Amino acid sequence: MGPGPVNAHPRVLRAMSADMLGQFDPEMTGYMEQVMALYRPVFGTENRWTMLIDGTARAGIEAALVSLVSPGDTMLVVDFGRFGLLLKEIGERVGARVEMLSAPWGETVPMEAIAQAMARTGPKLVACVHGDTSTTMAQPLDGLGALCRDAGALSYVDATATIGGMEIAADRWGVDVVTGGLQKCLGGPSGSAPITISDRAAEHIFARRHTEHGIARADLAQGSGIRIGSNYFDLAMVMDYWSEKRLNHHTEATTMLYGARECARIALGEGLEARFARHAAAGRAVVAGARAMGLTVFGDDRYRMTNVTGILIPAGVDGEAVRRRMREDFEIEIGTSFGPLQGKVWRIGAMGYNAMKHKVLITLGALEAVLRAEGHATPPGAGVDAALEAWG
Amino acid sequence: MGPGPVNAHPRVLRAMSADMLGQFDPEMTGYMEQVMALYRPVFGTENRWTMLIDGTARAGIEAALVSLVSPGDTMLVVDFGRFGLLLKEIGERVGARVEMLSAPWGETVPMEAIAQAMARTGPKLVACVHGDTSTTMAQPLDGLGALCRDAGALSYVDATATIGGMEIAADRWGVDVVTGGLQKCLGGPSGSAPITISDRAAEHIFARRHTEHGIARADLAQGSGIRIGSNYFDLAMVMDYWSEKRLNHHTEATTMLYGARECARIALGEGLEARFARHAAAGRAVVAGARAMGLTVFGDDRYRMTNVTGILIPAGVDGEAVRRRMREDFEIEIGTSFGPLQGKVWRIGAMGYNAMKHKVLITLGALEAVLRAEGHATPPGAGVDAALEAWG
Repeated sequence: MGPGPVNAHPRVLRAMSADMLGQFDPEMTGYMEQVMALYRPVFGTENRWTMLIDGTARAGIEAALVSLVSPGDTMLVVDFGRFGLLLKEIGERVGARVEMLSAPWGETVPMEAIAQAMARTGPKLVACVHGDTSTTMAQPLDGLGALCRDAGALSYVDATATIGGMEIAADRWGVDVVTGGLQKCLGGPSGSAPITISDRAAEHIFARRHTEHGIARADLAQGSGIRIGSNYFDLAMVMDYWSEKRLNHHTEATTMLYGARECARIALGEGLEARFARHAAAGRAVVAGARAMGLTVFGDDRYRMTNVTGILIPAGVDGEAVRRRMREDFEIEIGTSFGPLQGKVWRIGAMGYNAMKHKVLITLGALEAVLRAEGHATPPGAGVDAALEAWG
Repeated sequence: MGPGPVNAHPRVLRAMSADMLGQFDPEMTGYMEQVMALYRPVFGTENRWTMLIDGTARAGIEAALVSLVSPGDTMLVVDFGRFGLLLKEIGERVGARVEMLSAPWGETVPMEAIAQAMARTGPKLVACVHGDTSTTMAQPLDGLGALCRDAGALSYVDATATIGGMEIAADRWGVDVVTGGLQKCLGGPSGSAPITISDRAAEHIFARRHTEHGIARADLAQGSGIRIGSNYFDLAMVMDYWSEKRLNHHTEATTMLYGARECARIALGEGLEARFARHAAAGRAVVAGARAMGLTVFGDDRYRMTNVTGILIPAGVDGEAVRRRMREDFEIEIGTSFGPLQGKVWRIGAMGYNAMKHKVLITLGALEAVLRAEGHATPPGAGVDAALEAWG
């Protein structure tokens, strides 16, 4: 019950024990087509280029940034936590001139501030995290795409921590590239990063196409743009591999693809609206339970992620001892955080297969017992009762 | 029965249906320690830094090159096939000045030629593929490390296609970094790249350590070298994550780690010598079977990989029609190749779980029937009989 990775759905685990297929076997390429179709609604998009990057969520971020940004380009990062800092870090490594627009941890960034920062810095790319688990805040994104298009900028959103749990509306937001991961609200393992790319961004990326020498073909126009600084994360080659051209690039990670496919099938089978409501109920229940226990919930209520909740560690309580007892006595993992919040908050996640009523109730009951054992008594039963009522 | 990915061992598939663990759960970090210990003998090394890169085999290559090479460094590529060209391509993308030392496809590069090319070009890094599946040749590597150390150069070997099937002797070769993949002779899925790094190379890489801002710590000395041009592939951060520091980087791909661990356990349980002998028997059997069928085997017998065999497509035979019939009538996949060999050869692999007597015999029997159906009769039964005898 931490901020991810979380328990995987049993159906995902079963799907991952299927045997391999050759990468160009029609059954395998058929699965690749299915993955593209399945992830479009998950991302809230009709983008043709909707596929997987073979690596963890962070691999998806780097693939997006190294393919969108050319060295020397200005990139504006909308930052409100550790993963905003990660966008800066990756942006700098791929050669961007990074401008930061930062909110204090626990808040988000107003759209007007983004507009002003864009006017000031003239970015080629605006990059933003959707839900930053380090602060448990979710950045509102409606209107971001229009701002960027009006200014001739591309836009990128890291939705690792929200995809499958909160609405991702790539098309309504109007953003160009969104990436995610399986290990949070999609209820799968880390190691595959779903990505969607608008036609506009794809055109930009194909203008940098430099197919590798060993497999170059006459029917693939090479781009005039600067060659992308990574082979593995070159989205032009990844798109050519996922297209009907099936141009060999990496060897698609078969088992991870089976897992990613099953994650999306489960999400769409449940229904995205029902799934978002389930995560919202879980988030409400954790917040209500924590407050009924006399604990203080971190951050701005208006922008809270529904799938992870920060709770301030009360004065006099050893936060790590509590986490240890939770794990050793109850086999429940909860998180701490990073940077300014390290050792200051616990983070309780309720993501994917873990966003279930009984898991939330058991976690709060366990936390009560552990706090009591650590000498910090809370009103007996209050947390569980309040959570049960808040679930609705 | 292609050049990989191949069928995975059933034990690997079962291991991959185990549920997730938190990335800093002591059980998970215990598995990470086990993976380090299990892969040392697989690589033929005592290197402390022996771990996994979360991505396909190609991700391991890029992690090695981007971390070893600084922009402007000279990198000498020992090239004898498509994957030598890939080293060039990745080296250029990470900013190296790449010098090529190329052998014709079907041959390998003499060690004296490497010494001469090093004297001529003064490389910071010498990079070489061990077994290049595109040509089915394996480069002899004894002595490479000494050459490089004497010249003050680092050395890198891509052992993707041989690891677990032919001997990898990182320490005896004296090479600094070796990477692999699971999807060939280790009998697992693509998506995790084992890597080993010598202390000498680790020191070089830590001199470029630039821990990301969100997680920097006072006890981590930052290096004076040029920051590595990738976050995801920054081996300094990956090593800090796999060390007792457990510095957060990516979220380790849990399921792929379970799979990689089981691949190594199976290989060591069988015994590496027995495993290499099994692959050698399979290779001998394919070669003998093909020749008994009157087919011509591609490449230099002295340097043949044991786990994949190239067979020239006879004049007048439609190679793709043969591959299609093999797949549709027998559910057996065999490969073609790339570049100058595309459409010129078939490649029959016998890797990992597929390097078994019955699979080799069935494949040759199927090939005979398919060739007959395509109008190219071979002596009936001769391929299977010769393979059975050659297996020994």
